[in-house]
Amino acid sequence: MKNICLILEYLGTNYCGFQRQKNGLTIQEVLENTIEECLGEKCKTYPSGRTDAGVHALGQVVNFFTSTTVQPEKISVVLNLKLPKDIRVVKSFEVDSNFNSRKSAKSKTYIYKIFTGHELSVFDHGRVLFCYYKLDLDKMLKACKLIEGEHDFSSFVASNATTKTTVRTIYKATLEKTGDWLTFSVTGNGFLYNMVRILVGSLIEIGRGKLSLEEFEKVLLGNARHKAGKTVSPDGLYLKEVEY
Amino acid sequence: MKNICLILEYLGTNYCGFQRQKNGLTIQEVLENTIEECLGEKCKTYPSGRTDAGVHALGQVVNFFTSTTVQPEKISVVLNLKLPKDIRVVKSFEVDSNFNSRKSAKSKTYIYKIFTGHELSVFDHGRVLFCYYKLDLDKMLKACKLIEGEHDFSSFVASNATTKTTVRTIYKATLEKTGDWLTFSVTGNGFLYNMVRILVGSLIEIGRGKLSLEEFEKVLLGNARHKAGKTVSPDGLYLKEVEY
Repeated sequence: MKNICLILEYLGTNYCGFQRQKNGLTIQEVLENTIEECLGEKCKTYPSGRTDAGVHALGQVVNFFTSTTVQPEKISVVLNLKLPKDIRVVKSFEVDSNFNSRKSAKSKTYIYKIFTGHELSVFDHGRVLFCYYKLDLDKMLKACKLIEGEHDFSSFVASNATTKTTVRTIYKATLEKTGDWLTFSVTGNGFLYNMVRILVGSLIEIGRGKLSLEEFEKVLLGNARHKAGKTVSPDGLYLKEVEY
Repeated sequence: MKNICLILEYLGTNYCGFQRQKNGLTIQEVLENTIEECLGEKCKTYPSGRTDAGVHALGQVVNFFTSTTVQPEKISVVLNLKLPKDIRVVKSFEVDSNFNSRKSAKSKTYIYKIFTGHELSVFDHGRVLFCYYKLDLDKMLKACKLIEGEHDFSSFVASNATTKTTVRTIYKATLEKTGDWLTFSVTGNGFLYNMVRILVGSLIEIGRGKLSLEEFEKVLLGNARHKAGKTVSPDGLYLKEVEY
């Protein structure tokens, strides 16, 4: 059996997230069905992590075990012929048998796109958060610096999440402005359920002047959890890369 | 009755073109239904021209007559609340009663996007032509110069088109390269059915070395109509602007 690693790009708009579920079509279901159709084998796929409904990926990593004789590098070509146009295998290659997309990952990078212009173009719908508030970029940049480091992110997790520990380390958090566009980029050793979206919601509150940097620091210390921002739309969120 | 002009942006992917028809959903049907719903009046809309199934618009122009008391500039806001997310009114304003989007137009500009990179991203699917041939840009630029001017474009029209005259004047035809992207831009006093798509098909044949500049000149003189390129996909075509 070979352990095959896939780098996936997908537009999450039409899917109920990555992980297989009964209530709707998921990336995993489509991917596993396509693998079965193309390689003639039922294979379970292991992602670096789930992405929620509507969340996109530029570099999701998935591995699976197969006895196919198709060359590892050609598996991407074979799968792309059958995959729908909103899911694409960027690359496929063989990895060590003990490689696991999730457990072997050292860090992950997400980006979140925000549009602050007059009106959102039809071409960007579903791919960005449209923010109609005036934002103080300088304060948001300072907040990014506060996010970096090891913190208990218990204030930045969906209320229905179950997890052993809420401590995570953020290696880098940046915000870049290009014209009417803001891109928040965050790299960390792990992310809690909805964490990036709540961080972005908090950054927007800070930019709007609804949350001060001092209060945000308290939230990061776990002392003002009700003051964390809202969970913003999945539209602007992209799993950019998984680092090993 | 006021004559109202709308500037429209749309993603053509999910529509059977602009013009109302029995066989599928069109931009015009959605727009007229939304006008009726929002302004309480059945209004016929007059576009600057049809766009085909799958063709997009950055600045389609449409006018219609209405007795609504909604301020002309606010009509865009009202319609955008009800329009689907792939159709958007960029602007609305009152125009002279004898203004007609099609007849009053002096010229129109279309752009066509071509991607020449390794593999098309899921985020660009349906919005660009993916061209896997190596193209000679220099020859294509020379062909653009040949397109400019008054010509009988009878070799660049869909075979089922009916039109009085096939003579059109192209004021400007350019091709710009940005990384793996090519953008063909063409401004003319009018365009025949499928004309831009056949021009792009011909440019690609020239870029591939399958059609020489000399042959292309003959096609433009109407002497080698079978040598014109294929009608390329609507995916990369955008009605950019209508000039009055």
